[in-house]
Amino acid sequence: MRGAVIHGPGDVRFEARPDPVVQAPTDAIIRLSAACVCGSDLWEYRGINPITGPTPMGHEYVGIVEEVGAEVTGITPGQFVVGSFFASDNTCEICRAGFHTSCRHREFVGGTQAEFLRVPLADGTLVATPEVPSDDLVPSLLAASDVLGTGWFAAVAAGVQPGATVAVVGDGAVGLLSVLAARELGAERIIAMSRHESRQKLALEFGATDIVTERGDAGVAVIKELTDGLGAHSVIEAVGTQESMMQAIRSARPGGAVGYVGVAHDVALPGEELFYSHVQLLGGPAPVRRFLPDLVDRIWRGTIDPGRVFDLTLPLADVAEGYRAMDERRAVKALLRP
Amino acid sequence: MRGAVIHGPGDVRFEARPDPVVQAPTDAIIRLSAACVCGSDLWEYRGINPITGPTPMGHEYVGIVEEVGAEVTGITPGQFVVGSFFASDNTCEICRAGFHTSCRHREFVGGTQAEFLRVPLADGTLVATPEVPSDDLVPSLLAASDVLGTGWFAAVAAGVQPGATVAVVGDGAVGLLSVLAARELGAERIIAMSRHESRQKLALEFGATDIVTERGDAGVAVIKELTDGLGAHSVIEAVGTQESMMQAIRSARPGGAVGYVGVAHDVALPGEELFYSHVQLLGGPAPVRRFLPDLVDRIWRGTIDPGRVFDLTLPLADVAEGYRAMDERRAVKALLRP
Repeated sequence: MRGAVIHGPGDVRFEARPDPVVQAPTDAIIRLSAACVCGSDLWEYRGINPITGPTPMGHEYVGIVEEVGAEVTGITPGQFVVGSFFASDNTCEICRAGFHTSCRHREFVGGTQAEFLRVPLADGTLVATPEVPSDDLVPSLLAASDVLGTGWFAAVAAGVQPGATVAVVGDGAVGLLSVLAARELGAERIIAMSRHESRQKLALEFGATDIVTERGDAGVAVIKELTDGLGAHSVIEAVGTQESMMQAIRSARPGGAVGYVGVAHDVALPGEELFYSHVQLLGGPAPVRRFLPDLVDRIWRGTIDPGRVFDLTLPLADVAEGYRAMDERRAVKALLRP
Repeated sequence: MRGAVIHGPGDVRFEARPDPVVQAPTDAIIRLSAACVCGSDLWEYRGINPITGPTPMGHEYVGIVEEVGAEVTGITPGQFVVGSFFASDNTCEICRAGFHTSCRHREFVGGTQAEFLRVPLADGTLVATPEVPSDDLVPSLLAASDVLGTGWFAAVAAGVQPGATVAVVGDGAVGLLSVLAARELGAERIIAMSRHESRQKLALEFGATDIVTERGDAGVAVIKELTDGLGAHSVIEAVGTQESMMQAIRSARPGGAVGYVGVAHDVALPGEELFYSHVQLLGGPAPVRRFLPDLVDRIWRGTIDPGRVFDLTLPLADVAEGYRAMDERRAVKALLRP
């Protein structure tokens, strides 16, 4: 088969890779219906994360089950499935507490920008749709695989409650979909922080009530103005830098919470400021699996349309252009069709 | 009147101070029945926090109301009251959310190691007991004013649930009383980290099921051993150093939480480790007022006896000896009787 492999910063190639095969009796092999490029893939593409050798890329996926191992009982060939970037058993204590990305048996699922994929722990990892979806549902189901699930976790981690005021730091796909999640969870006011017109537009479509273009402490000052001097009840951080984390913490009111899902890079949180802020922090790699059944259901019923976050669709063979477009911020998120 | 004043590191004097008077119509003046020395008072005593000039000391108090301002309606002279170290209106949005120590109108209540005290926002700050308590209840009611309320907040912030495994970092009065709080909140296993025999004994009396004497990463390793490799559901941090914070975070399982109430000194939390830990953080100056009615009730009914944390009782005039005894760790906590 063929798939995307990164060879160095800026160097993504669509090339031959070995066909995946069932290695463990709990594996499934799926034929990908769609994949995409993630904002976090750009850390490698931009040379910020080191690349030690040619590496298959991608970790978001939906597809049709081709084959399952002997111990797989819940998933059958022919089903359309959605999975997450960490395989999980869905039965250990950590999974039962809803933190599947820290599952005792977790395994990273990489190399999904390809024609086929091996998914470990298929029963615990994959969620099947009621039937094979029509083509127009595929982008939304693919969004559930990571960016929607991650935005949703951020909103839950930030404690979004009905009637709450929510601020969102970061206008990438995750930030935009956390706006949608906050709306679905009943937030009354959703303040999206963005200075890009097309992203502002999408944020408003997803449910944002206010747009703030200022950043850093200037952005914090505007949030305070909008919230009677107090700050937001819930703040979602979807960037992962020192500036964005501090902007998020300072935008929350005492007793409020920050849900952070931007992968932290060179971040050090000042203990004393955090102590006196009275702001709760929870974040990390989103346990998308916790939310998948609910998200698939909402998409299936047409309640939410997160697939709108894809503003570029390319043949899988043109994956390199997907990286370029996202790197240059010409696209929010690129969908790849094998 | 007379009260404790710190003049420099190690230099606490019992000396004449102006009698407090009603300054605002929401004030109350109380005659102190008891006060005490707090672990956080030692930051000044040890010269770690700067002392800019002679400063009245103490922030824990119980006493009899002597006089109230014209607008005070809920508190009357002759009542026995318990207050907290921040006066709060108990009506603003932040108080209603339970974070009274960040009240919009909060005011620090200092100088309680004295004969009389002015308490601002008396209606919002003070909680009266059903009647004037017998002498034997006074230490427990005084503990509610800070150390019990702070330990209780730490347990709540750490999300202690019935059946949970809880680890406590710090064996000062707050750490010991967070053991008691965890027990009251239904924790099944409570692991106290302490290497001092007298404190271990009190921890066991308050409900600890295990004692761990190791510190830092060695302490973390023991906690993991005791919890099937996962870590505790809830961890209470009651020290405030870099080492103790990291020990707390690393002792919690993914999806677990740290409640931290040690005043953070020179602490910087590594963003990436926190991100991948999946551990929730909440802490800060404890909103004791949130818990006071419940705590006073439990003490009144004899359900809890937090006053046992006082292992030294002195006349207020001997306050300097109270500081010395705590500084030298000869006493867990010194009670002062005017």
